[in-house]
Amino acid sequence: MNKVSVAVLGASGMIGQRFVQMLEGHPYFEISGLFASERSAGKTIGDVLKVRDHKYMSSTMEMPIEKLTPKAVSRSCRIAFSGLPTELAKSVEQDLAEAGLAVFSNASAHRMREDVPIMIPEVNADHFAVVMSQPTYDDGGFIVTNANCSSTGIAAPLKALDDAFGLKFVTVSTYQALSGAGYPGVPSLDIMGNVIPYIGGEEEKMEIELHKMLGSVDKGRIRNADFTMLANCARVPVVDGHLESLVVRMEKTPSLEQLSESLSTFKGEPQRLSLPSAPIDPIIVRNEPDRPQPALDVLAGEPERARGMAVVVGRLRRKDDHFKLFVLSHNTLRGGAGGSILNAELAVAKGLI
Amino acid sequence: MNKVSVAVLGASGMIGQRFVQMLEGHPYFEISGLFASERSAGKTIGDVLKVRDHKYMSSTMEMPIEKLTPKAVSRSCRIAFSGLPTELAKSVEQDLAEAGLAVFSNASAHRMREDVPIMIPEVNADHFAVVMSQPTYDDGGFIVTNANCSSTGIAAPLKALDDAFGLKFVTVSTYQALSGAGYPGVPSLDIMGNVIPYIGGEEEKMEIELHKMLGSVDKGRIRNADFTMLANCARVPVVDGHLESLVVRMEKTPSLEQLSESLSTFKGEPQRLSLPSAPIDPIIVRNEPDRPQPALDVLAGEPERARGMAVVVGRLRRKDDHFKLFVLSHNTLRGGAGGSILNAELAVAKGLI
Amino acid sequence: MNKVSVAVLGASGMIGQRFVQMLEGHPYFEISGLFASERSAGKTIGDVLKVRDHKYMSSTMEMPIEKLTPKAVSRSCRIAFSGLPTELAKSVEQDLAEAGLAVFSNASAHRMREDVPIMIPEVNADHFAVVMSQPTYDDGGFIVTNANCSSTGIAAPLKALDDAFGLKFVTVSTYQALSGAGYPGVPSLDIMGNVIPYIGGEEEKMEIELHKMLGSVDKGRIRNADFTMLANCARVPVVDGHLESLVVRMEKTPSLEQLSESLSTFKGEPQRLSLPSAPIDPIIVRNEPDRPQPALDVLAGEPERARGMAVVVGRLRRKDDHFKLFVLSHNTLRGGAGGSILNAELAVAKGLI
Amino acid sequence: MNKVSVAVLGASGMIGQRFVQMLEGHPYFEISGLFASERSAGKTIGDVLKVRDHKYMSSTMEMPIEKLTPKAVSRSCRIAFSGLPTELAKSVEQDLAEAGLAVFSNASAHRMREDVPIMIPEVNADHFAVVMSQPTYDDGGFIVTNANCSSTGIAAPLKALDDAFGLKFVTVSTYQALSGAGYPGVPSLDIMGNVIPYIGGEEEKMEIELHKMLGSVDKGRIRNADFTMLANCARVPVVDGHLESLVVRMEKTPSLEQLSESLSTFKGEPQRLSLPSAPIDPIIVRNEPDRPQPALDVLAGEPERARGMAVVVGRLRRKDDHFKLFVLSHNTLRGGAGGSILNAELAVAKGLI
Repeated sequence: MNKVSVAVLGASGMIGQRFVQMLEGHPYFEISGLFASERSAGKTIGDVLKVRDHKYMSSTMEMPIEKLTPKAVSRSCRIAFSGLPTELAKSVEQDLAEAGLAVFSNASAHRMREDVPIMIPEVNADHFAVVMSQPTYDDGGFIVTNANCSSTGIAAPLKALDDAFGLKFVTVSTYQALSGAGYPGVPSLDIMGNVIPYIGGEEEKMEIELHKMLGSVDKGRIRNADFTMLANCARVPVVDGHLESLVVRMEKTPSLEQLSESLSTFKGEPQRLSLPSAPIDPIIVRNEPDRPQPALDVLAGEPERARGMAVVVGRLRRKDDHFKLFVLSHNTLRGGAGGSILNAELAVAKGLI
Repeated sequence: MNKVSVAVLGASGMIGQRFVQMLEGHPYFEISGLFASERSAGKTIGDVLKVRDHKYMSSTMEMPIEKLTPKAVSRSCRIAFSGLPTELAKSVEQDLAEAGLAVFSNASAHRMREDVPIMIPEVNADHFAVVMSQPTYDDGGFIVTNANCSSTGIAAPLKALDDAFGLKFVTVSTYQALSGAGYPGVPSLDIMGNVIPYIGGEEEKMEIELHKMLGSVDKGRIRNADFTMLANCARVPVVDGHLESLVVRMEKTPSLEQLSESLSTFKGEPQRLSLPSAPIDPIIVRNEPDRPQPALDVLAGEPERARGMAVVVGRLRRKDDHFKLFVLSHNTLRGGAGGSILNAELAVAKGLI
Repeated sequence: MNKVSVAVLGASGMIGQRFVQMLEGHPYFEISGLFASERSAGKTIGDVLKVRDHKYMSSTMEMPIEKLTPKAVSRSCRIAFSGLPTELAKSVEQDLAEAGLAVFSNASAHRMREDVPIMIPEVNADHFAVVMSQPTYDDGGFIVTNANCSSTGIAAPLKALDDAFGLKFVTVSTYQALSGAGYPGVPSLDIMGNVIPYIGGEEEKMEIELHKMLGSVDKGRIRNADFTMLANCARVPVVDGHLESLVVRMEKTPSLEQLSESLSTFKGEPQRLSLPSAPIDPIIVRNEPDRPQPALDVLAGEPERARGMAVVVGRLRRKDDHFKLFVLSHNTLRGGAGGSILNAELAVAKGLI
Repeated sequence: MNKVSVAVLGASGMIGQRFVQMLEGHPYFEISGLFASERSAGKTIGDVLKVRDHKYMSSTMEMPIEKLTPKAVSRSCRIAFSGLPTELAKSVEQDLAEAGLAVFSNASAHRMREDVPIMIPEVNADHFAVVMSQPTYDDGGFIVTNANCSSTGIAAPLKALDDAFGLKFVTVSTYQALSGAGYPGVPSLDIMGNVIPYIGGEEEKMEIELHKMLGSVDKGRIRNADFTMLANCARVPVVDGHLESLVVRMEKTPSLEQLSESLSTFKGEPQRLSLPSAPIDPIIVRNEPDRPQPALDVLAGEPERARGMAVVVGRLRRKDDHFKLFVLSHNTLRGGAGGSILNAELAVAKGLI
């Protein structure tokens, strides 16, 4: 099979470097260009290296970054993976879709459009259907977004619970990692030995996006799910890995064992299709008293290509009709670059690319 | 007025050193002895210094620590401030009460006894009444505890809301500081760049203690308050200051302005009595988008002697009939040594000592 | 005595906020204006608060910041304390000197001018003499700089050793705090759990500035001191406090006791004149095995107004004719705002203002 | 080839877990037993997991730990890899040697014995010769140690310089990681946002061990090298990776290019023998202005099995006849478990096992 040529937009950033990492030796995709703003143009990935747990091949380290223009991108590839800042993403991504590219984006710019899905293939692979309403679809151009990283982390567990027991009420508090703010991101003087109980727009995104993602497709349109969702978001001094504490109530009240089983046995389209970046178990349930922890569990997921793509759930507790749990996910892999790549893998597997 | 001679138990620990700090130049109390386990006996406070933001006088630095035995303690003082580990506290504190001392304790050992109040004078000064049921009371000996540090942090805000609107439902997630685990406490290899979503017994304490503290006194007994309380507790790499995120629902649904006012105007017995360690405003409400933060706000409280004794509330938000907020408190001052000292000041002011 | 009206330039930055802190209630000086770039103009100190261990009065918190122009500054004050970035400092400071102001600057812009001293009053109060060569001096305008923060930290100990034993050879490795890089400064993603062995220009500054500061004044000009100085500079994840490890060799080889005594008994002009911000002991020698530490010792210095103005030396060790030691100093107090203020206090005390 | 059965002593500790990691799928060795103190006996590696960047196979995670007794160890294996604390190592390692086992130890207990080499195969493979003087050698039992982790980090660079230019004078300051102190090791309250300028015995070890390691073998005995070595050791809040700053002077003064080349082209016995854990380049020289950094470079080394086994040198600078540089090494791989394994690989390759 010929590999599909892809471009990475925003290649010098935290998400961009994760795209490059996950595309090394990818069975479907081949990088044909790295693009970023003028500031990074002319540099190599090695020059702007920010990912700590990197294992890049030396050929990757020497990959040059070009100045981003829609024309330069569309010249050479079929897919654009976008790690662009939102304000830039809006027009660039639209330009690329109009030029006939499939755009898989981390940016929030187009997430709330009716004809753009916020997709996590384990959760809502059927939302792909709305893409066909995009005016550029027939020419091969379309935009698929993935969710905000905090929304992504809990989407699969909430979907599993909703499927099994009917979700009613959720409160979530986040312990979000620094890499979620991009680079340079959070000044060290602000966050060293501190917690910042505010991430601009994050709570609103969580409260809105999850209703869209857990919604159903009805006559080509998404109907939002209906449950109460209340988010408190905070930044903590952790490099990678969003931890989230949840309290949930559902229509049916399962036993703790049933709750645990509904999570640990959950599978989705990527597992059924054995997509390359799909974790065998999208939700890993741990029974130790003190897990999941970002430092120990953030790279959960098998096989090797899916490290960082599973979410880890732990500390399941019940109190009357409420349940408490913690969920951990890798915010720049599962919640960032990896999410987009999995979306693209699904598109390829379904013959849409 | 003659100062009351006091002993500090567990003087080498995090709480013990905060006791010593707050007792320097205290208008009511005078340290007559510092006590700790054999390991620290013979050393000075300066030798075992762990508090970072110390401003100890050199005379304090040179204060010697003695080996703790109930006999040695009771010989020379009227009050014992206890920062002992729970397993030790149980018998030592009881022995001292039997020897006629007033014991003000941070330990959880006696908190759940019917005749022992968990006291925060702003919240439940009237709970002092149950002390009189203690068999040793007539000989001058009794035990008063203060709450677990996470419970303390939110007790006053919850009391303010309960008084004004009737509390129904609370979920809390904590971002707890390292000093809450004592010394040596949490290994650096466990917590550096990490969050640990587990603190043994903490969630249970929060869920139980707050019902007792917010309860009413009826015929000399405490009747627990009745509301739903669900806690998720986690440790973060912060030295001092517990941050807590809350979602609350009440019987009456106030406007955001009413909510804010009920918190910022809240006063209690310590304010009415102008106790030396009482903050003028026990609850400080901030309106900035990103406060309270441990690094900036943990030492809130005026006057000078009350620094670290106010709790700071911020990010008040409403969504239908639920409210979201963050609360910050100093876990070893307000939630530790300072809480005990305020309890003792109240006892002195009421003529009970 | 009428207080001298002073302006703080760069008031929104790390050094600027330390100026404001040290000028609260100052016996000689009174703030007549706070100035910063357009971005901060219109805000208050409270709005841009970055100093963690603040105890600002509420009146200070509400002080408004104006847009910096030389004209606005010179209108209302006699002294300008400058915490400006170097590129801006060059022309602004010169303009102010020409307008007849005494400028006390943290910036490196003018440090290497022959007629501008790099002054630490304990070390080289006599260097004030070269100021008279400045063309603006007769109109009351002049510039005095203080050294780079890493140079400042070890200047007094090296001066003490040079006076007593004749300095020959020094290697220094630094463990520098984040606040030394200003705000926003070092991105958290770069420094969390990391050490960065590079601070642009710092090693060169240390190797040059110390020779000028320890030089002698001869016929109105500074003659550089002559010793070998080799610096390795690194950034560590510490908020405030530069720690530096030294190996030194001198012409005479003292005993360890003599070495220690030469340091602990060292005094300078500020001590003789009892300047308000002068620490009683400018060099504090500690004998514990594991001190000085930034977390415990950075605020060394008495009286209250001089907290953070003493340097702390520890771990004195000898090996043949070499000595090893560690030195700690507060980089934004002693090595920043406090250094400038002490220079200005000296100028007032000597009748030069 | 039949694999040699090996035991890991101290398997629950930081070094022990690194042994297990490096022995997974090893071409020469096979784990026949994991041993630790009673406290960990009965648990699995997964239960006591402390290594953050782990990628253990699930079979490894489930490996049970047995209670350590010399008898239990010697029953089943030919080689013992020891990560024991020094006080325990002394007798246990000797007992095992007497029982005919080859012991490769990280402990310092036997390092200074005349008949025990402190071995880094790139530096002093010929020191193996002294092992033959050990009384137990003829029965197959012997002890080989590796150096203290800080000594190891700079041993190869110093050896390269000594070979090429003749080492005369070295000052080193260390920035040492937390994992070097074992587990639980350094309390978080001591090191968060702090530097501790003291590591008990470390400076002495560095000053002694390097003279032994760089010494020559003469008539079966090691003759210590002769150069001046002065160490200042400090702990920093980094998880893995010792950074060290050096100033060196040599008999011949090379150009910077010659210095760089002598380091980057350095090879030793492990490279000539292509030992499985030997990095292709034992010393990697980087030319960027701000490297090496623990967060980015600690896992240097190729091939895959040698990740963390190369040391990284950077910031080469010259000032007259002195040179300045920074060196980074992985303290629990190169400076711990990996060092012992490389020693054992050498022994196997040379037919000594």
